[in-house]
Amino acid sequence: MNAGVSIGAHPGFPDLIGFGRRNMEILKDELENYVLYQLGALYAVAKAEKKQLTHVKAHGALYNTACSRVDYAEAIVKAMKSFSRDLILIAPQNFKIAEVAQAEGLKVGFEFFADRNYTSQGTLVPRTHENALLKDINQIARRAVKVIKEGKVESVDGKEIQMNVHTICVHGDTPHAVEIARNLRKSLENEGIAITKLCELI
Amino acid sequence: MNAGVSIGAHPGFPDLIGFGRRNMEILKDELENYVLYQLGALYAVAKAEKKQLTHVKAHGALYNTACSRVDYAEAIVKAMKSFSRDLILIAPQNFKIAEVAQAEGLKVGFEFFADRNYTSQGTLVPRTHENALLKDINQIARRAVKVIKEGKVESVDGKEIQMNVHTICVHGDTPHAVEIARNLRKSLENEGIAITKLCELI
Amino acid sequence: MNAGVSIGAHPGFPDLIGFGRRNMEILKDELENYVLYQLGALYAVAKAEKKQLTHVKAHGALYNTACSRVDYAEAIVKAMKSFSRDLILIAPQNFKIAEVAQAEGLKVGFEFFADRNYTSQGTLVPRTHENALLKDINQIARRAVKVIKEGKVESVDGKEIQMNVHTICVHGDTPHAVEIARNLRKSLENEGIAITKLCELI
Amino acid sequence: MNAGVSIGAHPGFPDLIGFGRRNMEILKDELENYVLYQLGALYAVAKAEKKQLTHVKAHGALYNTACSRVDYAEAIVKAMKSFSRDLILIAPQNFKIAEVAQAEGLKVGFEFFADRNYTSQGTLVPRTHENALLKDINQIARRAVKVIKEGKVESVDGKEIQMNVHTICVHGDTPHAVEIARNLRKSLENEGIAITKLCELI
Repeated sequence: MNAGVSIGAHPGFPDLIGFGRRNMEILKDELENYVLYQLGALYAVAKAEKKQLTHVKAHGALYNTACSRVDYAEAIVKAMKSFSRDLILIAPQNFKIAEVAQAEGLKVGFEFFADRNYTSQGTLVPRTHENALLKDINQIARRAVKVIKEGKVESVDGKEIQMNVHTICVHGDTPHAVEIARNLRKSLENEGIAITKLCELI
Repeated sequence: MNAGVSIGAHPGFPDLIGFGRRNMEILKDELENYVLYQLGALYAVAKAEKKQLTHVKAHGALYNTACSRVDYAEAIVKAMKSFSRDLILIAPQNFKIAEVAQAEGLKVGFEFFADRNYTSQGTLVPRTHENALLKDINQIARRAVKVIKEGKVESVDGKEIQMNVHTICVHGDTPHAVEIARNLRKSLENEGIAITKLCELI
Repeated sequence: MNAGVSIGAHPGFPDLIGFGRRNMEILKDELENYVLYQLGALYAVAKAEKKQLTHVKAHGALYNTACSRVDYAEAIVKAMKSFSRDLILIAPQNFKIAEVAQAEGLKVGFEFFADRNYTSQGTLVPRTHENALLKDINQIARRAVKVIKEGKVESVDGKEIQMNVHTICVHGDTPHAVEIARNLRKSLENEGIAITKLCELI
Repeated sequence: MNAGVSIGAHPGFPDLIGFGRRNMEILKDELENYVLYQLGALYAVAKAEKKQLTHVKAHGALYNTACSRVDYAEAIVKAMKSFSRDLILIAPQNFKIAEVAQAEGLKVGFEFFADRNYTSQGTLVPRTHENALLKDINQIARRAVKVIKEGKVESVDGKEIQMNVHTICVHGDTPHAVEIARNLRKSLENEGIAITKLCELI
């Protein structure tokens, strides 16, 4: 925290043995409660350290599904608004959840997944596919620099996708994640791109 | 809530299949985090309904163990203080946890279990014992009236225990719980004892 | 057991807080393992009582989804075959799972849900719909007698469905379940329909 | 399995978030059921691979507590006997659980923890203590050779403990576990100590 790190909630489906990476069919009201529950739990732990939550990013399958499924997007946004209108939603640009959040008055930080391949529709290649994860550290850094500077990313089938980006994700369980993140940060800085807190950016 | 009911958290051990009614050996810091987590989760759900938490009562085995075990008592009180100094702790008088809470500046509501037998040391007869639960509805009501009016309750082995009481518990899973609670309330009111919110009482 | 009751496994999705009544997107191999795990766990508890498992019926959302989804049907059948080729699968006639099981050489007991409404496609009206559950005890019994004697049941929209039935389900959490089951049994016996063990029937 | 590895069950307390490493206060009958459940679940998964269970070793806090607590020892042994009298119990020599198992006719494989310090009473130094784990790979190997050849191990406070040993444990989550295990195996083999299957040894 003294390192300038912001704290955000990462609510997901109640599927611990699947690490929240499998889709579940849940009623909208139930999902809203699950998100509230997780926001509140983290809020309390942060409060004991005299820290605040600044943002929310859905986890795993909930993130992917809420991109296009309106009831899930609405449940997440409703829970966030009930909890605090100052929370920033992290979501990809051009998807339903970002649209719903902005229509409801929440700020949205657009996200890019540095270690994942994209389809030409701008969705992530699912983890069950072979080429879901990128492995070449320098390729990962080059893609990140390009998306920040030009707003463009190449899809898995060679198309160019437009994408505005405020924040970049490297998954903590991607092999060599720390090395990937360090190299990526250095590449951004070498290009003169300053790294700042999300709440100061949007 | 429009019925004048207060909302309190009921944090317990992370033992769902044992319904939190079995003791666990947990480090103090872990317990503090478990309590914070549960306070926060309920806080968020209540906030979405525009309601506030007023009190905290440990659940099941945590309640019983924290009565006498200082590290558990301190963990609960520390979590409460981190979260909000206005939260009232519900605990039995004359036990360690009440003492710790008062020393740390928290208000304490002393509790009486209407549907449970007491040992002559003032602790609850454990649920693994045959006569843990009282079953006679009128006996339960008479004991409640006596403890409020005279500050006295008879133990399972016939001794008289001194006990100040602000709040009375009837377990929701005691057979005929609703009938017990209705009869108890009527008995108190027949004796001219007014029922009020805990936060207006202490 | 001395009452002539057979023991069967009732494996479901790993979704305790949803009581297994919500669909989950699970890989076939994972589902096979979940079913094996649940079969084995019950087998061991039964063995300690010197009893055997005779049948398997998927629970909740897994039951419904495996009716039509081939990968889920195959996972259940594969787990059963690995465990014991003598296990009988309980499933509705005319659905994918029954077909898969029979093709793999398992015996299938066709099931009728006495306390649930059916669509004209022969599937259960989902629990999220208002008229999912039947409430009239005598109507429930009449439907059961009719399906056994004539092989016919009336759907929620008034069509007649053909259905062979070996076994009848009354959900334990349907209100008045015991009364429903008693009345249903009496009605069958009044019509001269003998009740027998599944393993003696098919 | 083609590598000559035996499969054993490792049943523990139902405390996933504590990784079974915290003590729980559980009734004997409940514990017996938990052990049966876990034996059965693994049995089914092994059966699907056409493999058998050969041994059982309690996990974490259950292992430690059952060493000295008779009701827990009896629950584990009773579950094992109900399931199969051919299962070998893994336990430390000279402790209650080994005694109970032998009195009930089960074979016992005496275990040595290569990566853990011992008290002079022959119990493990608890994980909450600083020097619970040994870190020096060569020291670990020397201790293992000594306990096999001389039946002796040095306690954390410098005393010599007598210990017969059939099987040696290196925890999978001890740092450098694979290196520790390789070095230990090589040291044993260098001393002419043959490694064999437990079921061929006792």
